[in-house]
Amino acid sequence: MSSQTRFKKDKEIIGEYETQVKEIRNQLVEQFKCLEQQSDARIQLLQDLQEFFRRKAEIQLEYSRSLEKLAERFSSKIRSSREHQQFKKDQHLLSSVNCWYLVLNQTRRESRDHATLNDIYINNVIVRLSQISEDVIRLFKKSKDIGIQMHEELVKVTNELYTVMKTYHMYHTESLSAESKLKEAEKQEEKQFSKSGELNVNLLRHEDRPQRRSSVRKIEKMKEKRQAKYYENKLKCTKARNDYLLNLAATNAVVAKYYIHDVSDMIDCCDLGYHASLARTLRTYLSAEYSLETSRHEGLDVIENAVDNLDPRSDKHKLMDMHNQVFCPPMRFEYLPHMGDEVCQVSAQQPVQTELLMRYHQLQSRLATLKIENEEVRKTLDATMQTLQDMLTVEDFDVSDAFQHSRSTESIKSVASETYMSKVNVAKRRANQQETEVFYFTKFKEYLNGSNLIIKLQAKHDLLKSTLGEGERAECGTTRPPTLPPKPQKLRKPRPRSVYNHKLFNGNMETFIKDSGQPIPLVVESCIRYINLYGLQQQGIFRVPGSQVEVNDIKNSFERGEDPLIDDQNDHDINSAAGVLKLYFRGLENPLFPKELLGPDLHRQTGVFS
Amino acid sequence: MSSQTRFKKDKEIIGEYETQVKEIRNQLVEQFKCLEQQSDARIQLLQDLQEFFRRKAEIQLEYSRSLEKLAERFSSKIRSSREHQQFKKDQHLLSSVNCWYLVLNQTRRESRDHATLNDIYINNVIVRLSQISEDVIRLFKKSKDIGIQMHEELVKVTNELYTVMKTYHMYHTESLSAESKLKEAEKQEEKQFSKSGELNVNLLRHEDRPQRRSSVRKIEKMKEKRQAKYYENKLKCTKARNDYLLNLAATNAVVAKYYIHDVSDMIDCCDLGYHASLARTLRTYLSAEYSLETSRHEGLDVIENAVDNLDPRSDKHKLMDMHNQVFCPPMRFEYLPHMGDEVCQVSAQQPVQTELLMRYHQLQSRLATLKIENEEVRKTLDATMQTLQDMLTVEDFDVSDAFQHSRSTESIKSVASETYMSKVNVAKRRANQQETEVFYFTKFKEYLNGSNLIIKLQAKHDLLKSTLGEGERAECGTTRPPTLPPKPQKLRKPRPRSVYNHKLFNGNMETFIKDSGQPIPLVVESCIRYINLYGLQQQGIFRVPGSQVEVNDIKNSFERGEDPLIDDQNDHDINSAAGVLKLYFRGLENPLFPKELLGPDLHRQTGVFS
Repeated sequence: MSSQTRFKKDKEIIGEYETQVKEIRNQLVEQFKCLEQQSDARIQLLQDLQEFFRRKAEIQLEYSRSLEKLAERFSSKIRSSREHQQFKKDQHLLSSVNCWYLVLNQTRRESRDHATLNDIYINNVIVRLSQISEDVIRLFKKSKDIGIQMHEELVKVTNELYTVMKTYHMYHTESLSAESKLKEAEKQEEKQFSKSGELNVNLLRHEDRPQRRSSVRKIEKMKEKRQAKYYENKLKCTKARNDYLLNLAATNAVVAKYYIHDVSDMIDCCDLGYHASLARTLRTYLSAEYSLETSRHEGLDVIENAVDNLDPRSDKHKLMDMHNQVFCPPMRFEYLPHMGDEVCQVSAQQPVQTELLMRYHQLQSRLATLKIENEEVRKTLDATMQTLQDMLTVEDFDVSDAFQHSRSTESIKSVASETYMSKVNVAKRRANQQETEVFYFTKFKEYLNGSNLIIKLQAKHDLLKSTLGEGERAECGTTRPPTLPPKPQKLRKPRPRSVYNHKLFNGNMETFIKDSGQPIPLVVESCIRYINLYGLQQQGIFRVPGSQVEVNDIKNSFERGEDPLIDDQNDHDINSAAGVLKLYFRGLENPLFPKELLGPDLHRQTGVFS
Repeated sequence: MSSQTRFKKDKEIIGEYETQVKEIRNQLVEQFKCLEQQSDARIQLLQDLQEFFRRKAEIQLEYSRSLEKLAERFSSKIRSSREHQQFKKDQHLLSSVNCWYLVLNQTRRESRDHATLNDIYINNVIVRLSQISEDVIRLFKKSKDIGIQMHEELVKVTNELYTVMKTYHMYHTESLSAESKLKEAEKQEEKQFSKSGELNVNLLRHEDRPQRRSSVRKIEKMKEKRQAKYYENKLKCTKARNDYLLNLAATNAVVAKYYIHDVSDMIDCCDLGYHASLARTLRTYLSAEYSLETSRHEGLDVIENAVDNLDPRSDKHKLMDMHNQVFCPPMRFEYLPHMGDEVCQVSAQQPVQTELLMRYHQLQSRLATLKIENEEVRKTLDATMQTLQDMLTVEDFDVSDAFQHSRSTESIKSVASETYMSKVNVAKRRANQQETEVFYFTKFKEYLNGSNLIIKLQAKHDLLKSTLGEGERAECGTTRPPTLPPKPQKLRKPRPRSVYNHKLFNGNMETFIKDSGQPIPLVVESCIRYINLYGLQQQGIFRVPGSQVEVNDIKNSFERGEDPLIDDQNDHDINSAAGVLKLYFRGLENPLFPKELLGPDLHRQTGVFS
């Protein structure tokens, strides 16, 4: 029985141990499987990424080519068009055409950038990804090597534990058997001892004492022997148990170390650089995308700047400059005295004086009425224009709502299109706008008629006023009729008739100087003075063209003998003042730099800035 | 002769006038041509822009579709893969896989945004452009109407001027003829007068005086008549001249007004809203492009954030959490006493004590040497790892140079590819990296061997130390051998053996409480204390999984009867501490919330967080 129980115990212990070791081994196998799975998943991920970027690169290239083709189609159209030749000079490039050119530029820029993106995907991102794949495979192999070494160590310590445990079991079994033998001997001795008491009694009866004494000695000897054996086995068992316990501690320490540190280290070996390299690859992708965005943004900013600079006024002046001959005011109609008629002014002597005076007063009152009426029209016109401007500059161009990605994109998008570009709204707005437009044009015609009449009557009125003033003065000396303005026209210095005429700007300086008695023509003196005062800090002075309208205005003033630049107020565009000076010099019969001095090249070059 | 000269003069004046008027008329015609040209150019520009945006919209749509297809291809692959099912729970999504998902998201986002761009081009930008075209045509017509009215006004004033000039010429001619007739009469009178002197002399000779007297009277009468006629004609001429001069002034004023203001106004009418509408259209385009960019940037930022969060450590813990069973430390090997052996500790009594002591000292000196040696290996290992890390985290991902558009793009681009990804450089770097890697693995194996040996010897050493210490104390009472450390192990509270074992985490609380005499298990008390101290502000406490390694570490400490959370330093991850507590409660034989109380739904739900 007891031997059977002992056997069972041994088996149980070994069984328990083996189950535990088997579990660990299973875990170790599973751990390798785990790592292999992870490495496979990574290789799959990297392959997917490579394939993704390869296809995305293709898409970029297609996109780039489409944009390039698009830009080229319109660029070649522009290059071949006549207008382009006309606009070639920067100064004549209309602001709207400039926008169109910049939109094309932006398209080319996007095309180039997406081609660069393709290049970076193919030659950088994908190359990196394939390298990471190689790294993952290599590192997994190497880490598995390390893992195998670790596992061998575990197997080694568990085997050692098994051995020392078996040894302990063996010695303990032996120790137990020695103990039981010793106990048996002691029991025999005891039996012998109680027997010997009996024997002593029997001894008196029988003659076999020496035989019994030797048997007692034999038992004692056996007992001693068994005792020695017992101690020996017990020591062996103790040592074996100690070894077992020490190895147990060592094994547990090694197993704990493996699970707490070494497995983690093995995974670290597998991971070595994976995240860092992947991060660098993705950062390359991000850097490319961000750079594309920056470049795109720069281009858009250029366009936005051009849109900000969309300027009807400057375009109008460019148009008028380009067609200078067409918009240049013609010569004034001169008074042409008939057949040696020596009178060249309105005659206000009797008998026409009374009639002229009456006519003057009629004109005056008519003008006053007309001006009031026309001012009313002008006010309506201004208000209408303001309404139109408000319609035309309504800020309805923000479409950022359409790019919202949060929540339900669709609903927001439809709301946006509802607001801005729904057909009903657009039709309404346009009908409204055109109605206002029609009203504006009607009012504008009315205003034009009024102002034309006013300008005619005003001219006659002014001429009559000055004539009657002079006539009065010439006739009456000191007294003037109260209908005339207190300040007589005479304060405006009378100039020689020749100065008043168109020839000022297409003339001969020498003749002018002789005729006028001025050493420097007023126009030159005044323009230079004005430019000195306000223009020296002006960028592009003499290069940037002024307003054709203002140039004409100033020029006409000079031709009338006035000096429009005399008021110490910077209320004329400096470029227009410079333009007047250039116009004057350009119009000289004998240019400042005689043509003989200019070679053909130089001549062309100065032509750019003239 | 004189009549002929007079005729010539008339013709000359009329000719000069007509030339001037013809020139003006030519200018007016040319001005219309100019405006028509400008309007045609605008319509052409708008048509080009429409065509451009129509084609660009197509390109956007193609691009959007390609991206969509690309994203869908990989998304469906992911959806069908087993891993995805595994990663579905957020907490198990590896950081690298997360990056990949976000790259796909970004692709989808780009696809959507470019589709939106297409939509805005087609349904907003192009619609606006065609409206501007209509406006340009309509406004040109209306402005031409205005211009025709202006030109009619000019024709009218010049015709008037012509009429009054002709009248002046006529009256002046008449005045001149009257004057010459008067002069003739005066001359006749004078002749008659000198004749009459002669006559007086002759009178004495002849008897024809009364006849002569009547002739004188006749001449005087004629002279008077002619004088009256002369005055009459002179007055007419003066009036006509005055009219001419007044009309001249008016004409010049009207012409000047036309050239200085009206032409400009007419062009303004043509331009009405053109620039504003074009600006709004282009701003719509810009708004769309800028919004696309913003959206794109947001998406890239999300990816960048994910790249920043690429973390090998957390991925490792996720892997180990996912395969909890595989990486969970096994039960410790227990000491299994053989066949009722009642000794369960290392026996340090004589006669083995001396031997153990000797062994202890040997272990001690061996450990000291090993530790020094292994520390050296570790230092080399750390240095090698640092070198590797430096190689792996080199910041070589900036490709923005490739997107420079200034000057010679090509040369800069080639330089960039030279620096980063030239084949020679890449090969060199990779060879270098792998060499370092090989060295690292060699050293790592060496270090592993060393540390395994150390851990084994240390475990034996520690067990011997405590055994000998206890043995000594048990034997010698007060004196301890000088080789032992001054602080005996006894200071560590001895706990019942059952507390030391693995069953702590897979046990029965009631039994534990009975066995240990603690009302609340140390692990519960300590974890709650630690979480109270450091975890109450922690987002996701009890939801975010801790590090499996650290959880195991803490758990093992508790199983050894230590309290790893006792030091008042927050040097354990709070989520790991929470994890230990969860692990403890999860491991209870009788769950805190008995299974009967949980419905199937609730059970599943708590399962998500367990």
